[in-house]
Amino acid sequence: MTDILNELIVTFGDDNVQLAPPKYLSEPRRHFFAEPMPLLRPRTTSDVSDIVRHCAEHKIGIIPYGGGTGLVGGQVSPTAQNTVIISLERMNQLRSVQPLENAITAEAGVILADVKAAADDVDRLFPLSLASEGSCCIGGNLATNAGGVQVLHYGNTRDLCLGIEAVLPDGQIFNGLKPLRKDNTGYDLRNLLIGSEGSLGIITAVCLKLFPKPAQIATAMIAVPNPDAAIELLAFLRASLNGAMTAFELIHKQSYDFLSETMPQIRQPFEQTPEWSVLMELSGPAGVDLNANVSQKLGQALDQDLLTDAVVAQSQTQSDAFWTVRESIPEANRLIGSISSHDISIPISRIPQFIKETPAVLATLGDFRINCFGHLGDGNLHYNVYPPMGVQRDTMKHASQDVQKIIHDQTHKFGGSISAEHGIGRLKSKDLITYGDAGKLSAMRAIKAALDPDGIMNPGAVITQN
Amino acid sequence: MTDILNELIVTFGDDNVQLAPPKYLSEPRRHFFAEPMPLLRPRTTSDVSDIVRHCAEHKIGIIPYGGGTGLVGGQVSPTAQNTVIISLERMNQLRSVQPLENAITAEAGVILADVKAAADDVDRLFPLSLASEGSCCIGGNLATNAGGVQVLHYGNTRDLCLGIEAVLPDGQIFNGLKPLRKDNTGYDLRNLLIGSEGSLGIITAVCLKLFPKPAQIATAMIAVPNPDAAIELLAFLRASLNGAMTAFELIHKQSYDFLSETMPQIRQPFEQTPEWSVLMELSGPAGVDLNANVSQKLGQALDQDLLTDAVVAQSQTQSDAFWTVRESIPEANRLIGSISSHDISIPISRIPQFIKETPAVLATLGDFRINCFGHLGDGNLHYNVYPPMGVQRDTMKHASQDVQKIIHDQTHKFGGSISAEHGIGRLKSKDLITYGDAGKLSAMRAIKAALDPDGIMNPGAVITQN
Repeated sequence: MTDILNELIVTFGDDNVQLAPPKYLSEPRRHFFAEPMPLLRPRTTSDVSDIVRHCAEHKIGIIPYGGGTGLVGGQVSPTAQNTVIISLERMNQLRSVQPLENAITAEAGVILADVKAAADDVDRLFPLSLASEGSCCIGGNLATNAGGVQVLHYGNTRDLCLGIEAVLPDGQIFNGLKPLRKDNTGYDLRNLLIGSEGSLGIITAVCLKLFPKPAQIATAMIAVPNPDAAIELLAFLRASLNGAMTAFELIHKQSYDFLSETMPQIRQPFEQTPEWSVLMELSGPAGVDLNANVSQKLGQALDQDLLTDAVVAQSQTQSDAFWTVRESIPEANRLIGSISSHDISIPISRIPQFIKETPAVLATLGDFRINCFGHLGDGNLHYNVYPPMGVQRDTMKHASQDVQKIIHDQTHKFGGSISAEHGIGRLKSKDLITYGDAGKLSAMRAIKAALDPDGIMNPGAVITQN
Repeated sequence: MTDILNELIVTFGDDNVQLAPPKYLSEPRRHFFAEPMPLLRPRTTSDVSDIVRHCAEHKIGIIPYGGGTGLVGGQVSPTAQNTVIISLERMNQLRSVQPLENAITAEAGVILADVKAAADDVDRLFPLSLASEGSCCIGGNLATNAGGVQVLHYGNTRDLCLGIEAVLPDGQIFNGLKPLRKDNTGYDLRNLLIGSEGSLGIITAVCLKLFPKPAQIATAMIAVPNPDAAIELLAFLRASLNGAMTAFELIHKQSYDFLSETMPQIRQPFEQTPEWSVLMELSGPAGVDLNANVSQKLGQALDQDLLTDAVVAQSQTQSDAFWTVRESIPEANRLIGSISSHDISIPISRIPQFIKETPAVLATLGDFRINCFGHLGDGNLHYNVYPPMGVQRDTMKHASQDVQKIIHDQTHKFGGSISAEHGIGRLKSKDLITYGDAGKLSAMRAIKAALDPDGIMNPGAVITQN
């Protein structure tokens, strides 16, 4: 390793190459740790191209690194030999903001929050909303096709992208940054690289779609009798309300209980915590009393037994408080400590049956607490499993793999996906083979071998050859 | 050829195999003609897989065939040897309509208009709108990533697709029909096949997104002083009107003159034909007087000199009449007969300069009439060049290639695309190499060789090896 480091320092200079500090060698959930390896921090696309070309010639593996916030170990290789990290953190220029094009062009290392702020400065919206937006990078968001809470209306990150610039595994640059809305000149290399988690190339810059800012936003916390009612309520509100449903988040009572236990300072929205509730956000046009409309429709939904209680936020403060509840759930989960966490999607109409059936299957393994919450409008659930109250996680950690197998088997049976928004990384590369479509896996392997014949790009992530 | 035909009949039965009738051997613009070749018309995905596997084993080329409405020769191979046509026309089942999922699953041979009608039956919208919707097939729409007039709000066909089923070049089936909104399990094979024009596989079925039907629609014909003003008007209306701008079509005076000349029965919207005009359509919410809002904002735009005249449709009949004008332009163009037609896109903010500058460059070749019209909101222009009044097209047909070169050079110079919505097919495969990005072309060739090593899928279309 010292040899590679020294050789890279000689070739690219000691300002650009160093031994990676610890933060580059682990990830937020601390499932993956890597041995120290060289870290390169290029400043330009041309630098990235030179480094990749050098690595290709010397068959050196490359781990592309953005903000380091990924949850599936795509950015950390525990088994890496002869491998370097290329961090895009110094490629952090906003190249252009074009309100007339409704487009913004940013280098891969720009923090998501800074993209959003730059859009806001020209009275536009960049809708990607993630808990990690203060530290994740836009290049990584594209590389992993990040999801989040506004997918329901605006789509996944790939849907927010007009073009990319990337360095391919042989060092060639793909110049695809045009802000065009229509461009049918050949294969969709853009979408192939988006979501490939750095295993087919390194995204160096992105051109993103901007949207008009909503004139007003209504937020409500709604208690529902069960998930079936939540889904009917979503359909009813979408059909009857003027505006775009920009979030529809399902929350189980377990989430509130975890919040009470770990973060009692957070004010909860219901006096009596319901078994199931929904946080909805509606983006609406100007010139109507949006809150009044929402209240009226929620009243009608109450009469139809689609809900049992609802609170429409009357101020930004109240709306923020609702969102604080929702956004604190992952931290409460972390403090409790899960046996196994899952990022799954299911066809929306089948979610109620999945939720009814799965606890009984899990009960064959033992006694658990289940926290099921997430982006119901997208069919995306975070279905996390915890030890019963008073039991230490470590005493049940052995059940982790069996729990995960049950959840993924159930997801597969219901026609769902074992990775809705977090990606495959290294955490799920075996699951991809177990549950993936044979035709797709075969095509993926052929594409990987064609574009990266020596397997230098993020080795061990996403797709493996066996 | 008789040998292949007989062998296929023996293998697949004479109900499934015949000599292709003439309609399969040409295309709407009659630039491409093929020699007679075998035609296969499978009824199931499994049949398609068997046929492709047979062709792969015997190295027989395959031309996938949908509705035959493509405009770039993707469906007709004049140089084909040892090649068959596989038409999807018998795979015409709507497999499911799922209003709760906002999804519809259709086989590739379902006519677009039938998909739209099935969506309408469950009070949903499938927004893809093409002049050929009564005859084009949804599989072909996906294979070519078709555009149309509603891209401005709803996106290209790829943006309307949740999943596909396809047969890969070795006969394997890719089962990717899930109606999931979020699925990050590996490479985006769906988008790679979409827009690959049958050169990487055959799409056999598709799962599509459905949308809420707009509560009301406002339509207006607007005379603008110039293209700059049209673009400012678009930004102004988008920022100030409640609702979604679902069409914003630029029309040059030449279009009206061609309509007068060839289709005088069509009623024109302006007493005095303006140099430039726009047909706009706004989809709005219920509970507001949309036409009044539009009229008010158009009044403000008049005060800002963004327009010189406007007519807001007061009835469905009047709205239909406006659309008849727009949709008759291609037929009028055909009756006049172009020297060269172009389907280009340009970054929206640069369109005015492109429009100002290009006629002077063309004038270096001679005297022409230019009909420039199209989907301004998407930056997509149909920039078509005609002989001067009274001159026969045939006497100027020799200028065709030079005209095309000027338009494509100009498009390239302005950072645009030489194929916005029609694709590459066989018409533009050389242009793709001339104007395409080297990195992208190299990746495309590698992908083609990896997935289709014998080059049997739509040989000669899109990408060639040299």
